[in-house]
Amino acid sequence: MDPLRIYVDLALPADAHTLLAAGTAGHRLIQPASPVTSVLAQSDPDPQFEAVDIAFGQPSVAAIVRAPQLRWIHISSAGITRYDTPEFRALAAGRGVPLTNSSSVYDEACAVHALSFLLAQVRQLPRALCARPANGTAEWNGLRAASGTLRGAHILLIGMGAIGKRLAELLQPFGVRVTAHRRRPRGDEGIPVVGNDELAGALATADHVVNLLPEGPGTRGFFGPERFSTLRAGAAFYNLGRGATVNQEALLAALRSGRLGAAWLDVTDPEPLPDDHPLRLEPNCFITPHTAGGHAGEATTLVRHFLDNFGRFVRGDALRDRVF
Amino acid sequence: MDPLRIYVDLALPADAHTLLAAGTAGHRLIQPASPVTSVLAQSDPDPQFEAVDIAFGQPSVAAIVRAPQLRWIHISSAGITRYDTPEFRALAAGRGVPLTNSSSVYDEACAVHALSFLLAQVRQLPRALCARPANGTAEWNGLRAASGTLRGAHILLIGMGAIGKRLAELLQPFGVRVTAHRRRPRGDEGIPVVGNDELAGALATADHVVNLLPEGPGTRGFFGPERFSTLRAGAAFYNLGRGATVNQEALLAALRSGRLGAAWLDVTDPEPLPDDHPLRLEPNCFITPHTAGGHAGEATTLVRHFLDNFGRFVRGDALRDRVF
Repeated sequence: MDPLRIYVDLALPADAHTLLAAGTAGHRLIQPASPVTSVLAQSDPDPQFEAVDIAFGQPSVAAIVRAPQLRWIHISSAGITRYDTPEFRALAAGRGVPLTNSSSVYDEACAVHALSFLLAQVRQLPRALCARPANGTAEWNGLRAASGTLRGAHILLIGMGAIGKRLAELLQPFGVRVTAHRRRPRGDEGIPVVGNDELAGALATADHVVNLLPEGPGTRGFFGPERFSTLRAGAAFYNLGRGATVNQEALLAALRSGRLGAAWLDVTDPEPLPDDHPLRLEPNCFITPHTAGGHAGEATTLVRHFLDNFGRFVRGDALRDRVF
Repeated sequence: MDPLRIYVDLALPADAHTLLAAGTAGHRLIQPASPVTSVLAQSDPDPQFEAVDIAFGQPSVAAIVRAPQLRWIHISSAGITRYDTPEFRALAAGRGVPLTNSSSVYDEACAVHALSFLLAQVRQLPRALCARPANGTAEWNGLRAASGTLRGAHILLIGMGAIGKRLAELLQPFGVRVTAHRRRPRGDEGIPVVGNDELAGALATADHVVNLLPEGPGTRGFFGPERFSTLRAGAAFYNLGRGATVNQEALLAALRSGRLGAAWLDVTDPEPLPDDHPLRLEPNCFITPHTAGGHAGEATTLVRHFLDNFGRFVRGDALRDRVF
């Protein structure tokens, strides 16, 4: 086999780079002059890209269009927003170029992050970590009474991919009812799944609504005034999908009206939100800066996952985490 | 059967009181002039107590000594610190008075609170909820790299009662190794249990040490300089047992030296800690004000649990949550 030209636009720490070089020995690794430091950032234009066989990272759509020899695209995130358009899917299909993502790298951390939000909410951690009431005071009894468990709760997952599947597994011992929504229920999800027709009913009974939607043509503004108004009063809302799937004005209104008891957001639009954004000032809105997928050794896990798929590509086997 | 005189020292909300009155109809409920507002607070001396058959709440040991007709003591907390002395156990045994606690009322909330601490720690929530870094910055990558999952972690539970058992169940899907310590392993705990001989070895390999010890003659200062120095560098320590089981000077030193990566405390000694207590100023020490067992409807759950046991007492059946 001729050496493959593999374009890697990520800034990798030395150990992950060594692992990648060893795992692709005999082939050619090509890096831009300024690799990107975020697994989410699109790489800059680079003439070297026009002659590569494989892209690992966040190549721009424009660069892919101008790379006629490209045979496989492996994205370094779980989200594939910039590739998830009818035009790009048609281009990739027409040229026979598969696109894989790194969802296996991030599903565990994202599911644990989501559950950390749910438990921090039911145990009222943001308030409890600041409060200093003496035992037996009204404030103390109020804080205890505002706390709870998940037992008997209805948890609705919006989007049911690898993260939702894992989150449902982690929730299994809690004595909860977990329902998921996806556009086309398949029947093999292992938990009850509702389609669009039943979504309003599920929203109306959920205690916790966990949004895991990717950003795409069908999901932008998915949570708008109408869907928020369908929620039961006091429900908690979580977003670990993409910020643009939520209409933030509607979210703010739902918090201010008390329709929503709390919002926990790992993603926003834009990221980060400006310091003076009204969501930052809402007392029941809690924001982490898109860290849900992060974990120690992330670059190494990313490279291992790529190398596993690289071996499959070289052998002609089916690729893991293939999106299209 | 003659009507039983039931002394209830708790201040119960109206619905819980109605439930209690209905469930003990035909018997006599006696309450002090000033019922206690904390499930943890000892009640004041009251001459009425001297002629009761049953005590439900937090009666003082001195009052129990002067109540010759007392036939059953039902404590309104899971902890039984003030009754857990050789002298009191001998007194109760000599008079044939059983002591039950309310551990079934609190195990779920305490286990969920403990897991909320563990997940907030691995997802770095206190830091992530304050940080506002842009994607791709060094601060952002640092925060992601400091985050993790529990997969592969060794979690050591110190004390293995109802809370530890439930926490081990909740941890089951995480891919962790859970070990428990108890003075006398029974072999029926469902997870590996180490006794005193093996404790040092378990402490040396644990990533997360969860202290669930009650306060008693054998547990005061259980975590002192020696045991903290046995921990692996960077381990996280959690206390949801009782504050006095930890030597707080040793805990502070372990945090300052970096031996401990973080401490999460729901209990302290005293409660609350003074505002200027050095543990309050430690950046990696996170404190909730003894709210772990709290949950909406707590008073009703307490009363239901008492009534279940009251039925058993009247019928002569074995009592639930009997301590001795």
